Parts: sequence; C-alpha cells; structure tokens
Amino acid sequence: MTVLRQAAEARRAAIDLGAATRAEKDRALLLMADRLVERVEDIVAANAADVNRSREADQSEAMVDRLTLTPERIAAMADGLRQLAALPDPVGDVVRGSRLPNGLELRQVRVPFGVVGIIYEGRPNVTADAAGICLKSGNAALLRGSGSALSSNAAIVSVLRQAVADAGLPANAIQLLDATTRDSVKELMRARGLVDVLIPRGGASLIKTVVEESTVPVIETGVGNCHVYVDEAADLEKALAVAVNSKTQRLSTCNTAETLLVHAAVADSFLPLVLEEYGAAGVTVHGDPRVAGYGDDVVPATADDWRTEYLSADIAVGVVDSLEDAIDHIRRFGTGHTEAIVSESVTATRRFAAQVDAAAVMINASTRFTDGGEFGFGAEIGISTQKLHARGPMGLPELTSTKYIVTGNGHTRG
Amino acid sequence: MTVLRQAAEARRAAIDLGAATRAEKDRALLLMADRLVERVEDIVAANAADVNRSREADQSEAMVDRLTLTPERIAAMADGLRQLAALPDPVGDVVRGSRLPNGLELRQVRVPFGVVGIIYEGRPNVTADAAGICLKSGNAALLRGSGSALSSNAAIVSVLRQAVADAGLPANAIQLLDATTRDSVKELMRARGLVDVLIPRGGASLIKTVVEESTVPVIETGVGNCHVYVDEAADLEKALAVAVNSKTQRLSTCNTAETLLVHAAVADSFLPLVLEEYGAAGVTVHGDPRVAGYGDDVVPATADDWRTEYLSADIAVGVVDSLEDAIDHIRRFGTGHTEAIVSESVTATRRFAAQVDAAAVMINASTRFTDGGEFGFGAEIGISTQKLHARGPMGLPELTSTKYIVTGNGHTRG
Repeated sequence: MTVLRQAAEARRAAIDLGAATRAEKDRALLLMADRLVERVEDIVAANAADVNRSREADQSEAMVDRLTLTPERIAAMADGLRQLAALPDPVGDVVRGSRLPNGLELRQVRVPFGVVGIIYEGRPNVTADAAGICLKSGNAALLRGSGSALSSNAAIVSVLRQAVADAGLPANAIQLLDATTRDSVKELMRARGLVDVLIPRGGASLIKTVVEESTVPVIETGVGNCHVYVDEAADLEKALAVAVNSKTQRLSTCNTAETLLVHAAVADSFLPLVLEEYGAAGVTVHGDPRVAGYGDDVVPATADDWRTEYLSADIAVGVVDSLEDAIDHIRRFGTGHTEAIVSESVTATRRFAAQVDAAAVMINASTRFTDGGEFGFGAEIGISTQKLHARGPMGLPELTSTKYIVTGNGHTRG
Repeated sequence: MTVLRQAAEARRAAIDLGAATRAEKDRALLLMADRLVERVEDIVAANAADVNRSREADQSEAMVDRLTLTPERIAAMADGLRQLAALPDPVGDVVRGSRLPNGLELRQVRVPFGVVGIIYEGRPNVTADAAGICLKSGNAALLRGSGSALSSNAAIVSVLRQAVADAGLPANAIQLLDATTRDSVKELMRARGLVDVLIPRGGASLIKTVVEESTVPVIETGVGNCHVYVDEAADLEKALAVAVNSKTQRLSTCNTAETLLVHAAVADSFLPLVLEEYGAAGVTVHGDPRVAGYGDDVVPATADDWRTEYLSADIAVGVVDSLEDAIDHIRRFGTGHTEAIVSESVTATRRFAAQVDAAAVMINASTRFTDGGEFGFGAEIGISTQKLHARGPMGLPELTSTKYIVTGNGHTRG
C-alpha cells in the first residue's frame, strides 16, 4: 500500500506544482542542478555501494560502467537540468482558440497530466532527467528505478527533493518508489485514478508486462527493430553512409538499425561494399541465402533474426525484389519505431513514407536521428512507439494534456 | 476467433484506406448517404424486428423510442454522412515542421490510427455516425453495437459496406462484430497489435470493464458527474439561466449537470429562485441540510447523491462556504468531464479554471456546451474524459496519430 500512499501524496503535490509559474519551476531546476554538484561526494559514495554490489553479483563490465557515476557524469546530469530551465514551459500554451458563432470564447490550453509514473532500468542519470522533465511540465513524478541503482537513486532523489522544497515547491513532486520488490511495480500499475500516465522505459519484457497489466494509461516506449532499405534508385554512396551509421554509430539504442534490406537490382554493386564496412566495424552479418555469396563471414539468418532487436554488433541482411517486398517485410517485422529508405526516386520515397507504419520514417538519413535532442526538442523522456497521445520522441509538450476553457455571459443551449 | 479474423481483415483494409485521398473518401461518404436513403424501407423493416423484440422483453417506452428508426431518422443519418464529406480531411495535415541545424527536413504529419474498435449501446444511428467518422479519418472501423439493435445495425452496415465497395474503397473498412455474445467484446479487448484504439461509448459499467480489461489502448468517454457552482460574485440572473439549462435542456446526456453548489453568501437570494424553476421543470432536488429550508419538496441528499450521474430529472444541491470548498467538492466527486462556475469575479473564475481538473471548464455558460457540434468540430465520436491523447469532444483530428517524416541527403549522426 506504500505506493498508493505515495501516489496520493504526489496527487496533492501536483495541485501546487500545476499552478506553479515557469519562473518558480526554473528556479527549482537550477537549484536542483546546483545541489547535485555540491553533493557530488555523497552521490559518488552512494553509487559506490551499488557498483560494489553489481561487481559482487558478477555483472558485466558494460553493466557496471552504465551504473557508475563519476563527478563528470553528475555534472552532466546538472547540465541537463539547467538546459530544462532554459526551455519554454508547455503549461498554459493555448493549442486552439476561437470565438464560436454564439459568442462563446473557446480556448484549449495545455495542462500537466498530474502524476506521472516512470519505470526504468539501468543508468541512475535517468532519475535526474525524468524528475526534471516531469517538474518542468508541471507533473509530480513517481520514479521506480532499477534495484541495481538503489543507493544511487536514493541519494539523487534526496538531493533533488530538498532542492525542490528549498525553492518553495512541494518535495513530494519527486518521489522514489521501492525498488527492492516487484510489488511496487504492481501497485503502480493498479493506481488508476491516482496516477495519470505510466511510462515504462527499458527492455521489451518490462514494456510488455506494463502494457498488458496496467490499468493506468500507458505510453509504450522504446522497442525498435529498425530497418534500412536500400532502393534500386539509391545513391550507393549515401546508402553506404546511412547503412553503416544506422548500425554502428551506437549499438545499444532503440533507434539503431537491426536489419538491412537491399533491392536485388543493386545487390551486386552494394552488398560487397557494405559487408566490407560491417566487417571492418566488427559487425556480424546474418544474411539470407542471396546475401551469402557476397561475403565470407556471412552467418545464415534464421527466422528469428528478422524479428530480433540485437542491440549488439549484429545485423540481419536480406535481398528483396521490389519496394513492395521491402514494405511488406517491414510491416511484418517492424516495431513501429524508425524505418529508413535510401533512394533518389520521389515516387519510391513517397510510397515508402506513406505505407510504412512507424513513428519516424527517414529518407536518405540514418535511423539514429530519431531522438528528442536531434529533433530539437531540448529534452526527451523516451520515444513512444504507440499511436495514442504521442508518437516518436517525447519532449515537454508530450507530457501534458489539455483542458477546454469556455467563457460566456450566461449562455444557455437552445 | 472471429473477431481476430475480422480485425486482421480490417488491418488490410486500413492500408488502402489510409492511402485514399480526401476525394475518394468523400465520394464514398456521399454514396453511403444516398444508399441509406434509397434503402430506407429495408432498414425500417430490419429495425421493426429489433423494436418488436424490445417490446416483448418489456423494455421501457423510452428505450424503445431510442431504438426506433423512422425515415426521418434515417435521413438524418444520411445528412450526418454528407456533413462529414464537407469537413476537411485531417490525414496529411502537417502538425509541425522545421529544418534542423544539420539540414534535415522534419515534418510531423497526421496519419490514421489504422483500426479503431467502437463498443456502443443503444441507438442504431451511432452505427452510421461512427462508420462515417472512422472512414473520413482513414480508419477501418470494428463496430460492436448493442444486442438490442442487432438487425438494424446489420442492415445499416450491409448498406454502408456495399456503398464503400462501389466507391472503390475496401468494404472491410466497415465491419460489424457479433453482438449476440460478450465474447466479441472480450476478443476485441485482447486484439492488441491488430486493433490500434478502442473507444467504449455507453454507461459507466461498460467503460469501467473496457478500461480495466483491455490490452488495446483505450480512450475513455462519457461519464459525466458535472457540477454548476454559483459563486458569491455571481450575477444571479445568469446563474439561474445556467443552472436551469445545465440540468433541464436534456436530461440523459453526459454533459448534463448533476450537482449544483451555491455559495452561502447568495443562498438566501438564489436558492428560492432556482428551486422554484427546478420544481416547475419537474426536477427533484436532493438537498443538503442547508438547502432544505428553501423549498418544500427538497429530498434529503444522501452520501451517494454527490457521486451519482442521475441522467434523470434529479439534481443534488449543496451550499458551500467558499470557492475553495466548491473546488474541493468537485475534486472529490467530479468525473473530469465538465464543471461550470457562474461568477463576475475574474479572480474567482481564473482560480476555478486553473484548479478544477476537467476536460472542460465553463465560465458563465451551461455545461451542455461541451459537445463537438457546439465547439464547431462538425463531427464527434465521443467526449473523452481521460487525459491521454484526447480530452473533451473528439472530432476528426482526434481520430488520428502522427508520423515524423525526416528527409536528408545521406545524413549520418556524428
């Protein structure tokens, strides 16, 4: 029942926070940033406990590195909060407005959701990010981080809450939920009426659980089985750049390409080039039978490869006979995140953009560009792969709802 | 499994429908309208079977009236479809667009959801309305109507499907689900991945079931425990007009007022007036102890009255000591639909609008104005009382999602 109590407190805090001005919220964000830097030793010490536990549990060095907080990383968290302070406040924006024929004045205004629950894994820097984005958008945040980051998250949230209180806003606008038990996730998913939106950030299984079990409305994020399709009308130089960058610029992100589809008409000229570059970058190619002949190190692709989000130095590569076949393949195996086409043909790119069902379609550009920062949003709470409410990178406006305010002069309906 | 098969067919139909131009969709809508009028006798005959079954089951005359289709009502359905044809197409609208610092061109474009499931009760005219709104917004519709309107809905859908096919669009864009069993609702709620959005329209228990059991994203609609608050600074003439119209203009709609709250400072002058008008209109007043003295026919309000959506000639009436008490009462018992304040005070109306958490706030206007038609949307699929995606009356744009289309010239991320 602890989560329900915390949610009720968040609800009360959300009333005051929703009425806070931009100036008040920005003051809190800047104080949060300053305090993180001032308290860097405490946070690093708390983090050391998490890191030691992870080492003792024989976690991989990659995992341990993700978990580790250094003074530089804490300074980066603080900078993120300062950047939030510089962004416009979405709350109060008039989305639509008009005077109706009967003289009623209609305004649709952005308002905070109220209480936002965020369930996330891994890196403790998400704690400060998520808290800051929620605060700037006027939402109270219930943060359910990873058990591995227990001490780090507790230290960060304690610093942030004190800063919020000192800035004159309710400390309960930022609360950490118990990460030692799965019960807190279950309670959060059932807190309909107290929690307005739940955003799971993490692996496919976490997201599936939340989507299926939550009665609180969910924004699904992140799973990306992204494709790059090289069309027969592609400029092969651009195709090579996009295919390589989409896979190798960073391996473990949701907007990384996991499958490359190549039109048969350019297979002879393109596949040797791209396989060589993948080889040089240490990427294992899982190819269909038509790809096998173009490289020595091609691993035969299994049925599973087409649906796998590797998040590693692997890519599935297939040859298709037409744009339509590429679109069909993507419809079948894509997760609605980001799909790229490389082509100089207006007809082909227009058809691809219209018929591929995804949050983002890239035309002659890397899949890696689907990102709130790259899109110029200034902040991002995740990348929605659902169609309801927000689709693609979610910035501050995506963390708001709206309210109609209608002003009359004693108007009645006839 | 029938629903899943129908959903898969809807999914295929949605691909073609999503690519249809406004001209193609409008041609289909006009043909749907013409055919309803041409086939009026068949539809009335099918409706007679439903009406007879309802009579035999001893349904109330009000229920039977809601179910009955006359040539006039069918003509009105056809007119509704023609009005949809006259409305702008939301699909393809560019919501946001910019050129990013690196030269990438970013566009956020409206796209259909894909497949929309609608579960509704009562009136068979909703069948044509919902089918038309979904078609215009490029969505395939899975319609799960009421068992009582079985034959009427089958006749209407058969006419509409033929018209859609004759207009060159896929007939499976409009499908009726089996209304003889609850299984079809259950299957629809579990068709995640095939159905993009589910919209329940009906009573509180239907909506609660869908919200709690569906794994398909839901847009919650309709339950309205709406309040009118008469402030101490109210113009009592306007207050009387708003209080009476909000309750009596139509009794059974979700935007009808169910509770009147009166500031103690104006209770003496206002309550006698409004109680007399309610009495004259046949409305039973369920009053708190402070209301009792102002009218002979006041029924003592129980705790339940404050949370009841009567949908009948009843209203709960209470006296409050302050604006804050009114807001607290509404926070506690409101359903987030429509809340009205009558006041000449800018400070009071501003605070009420900011602190009341509802889809629509009316200032010196009747709660009955929360309506897609009144707001000038031209069409309405329901009134959302949730904060995700759409809040308030939902017109055509609210039945769309968006897609980012990003165009580059071989851009890669550094």
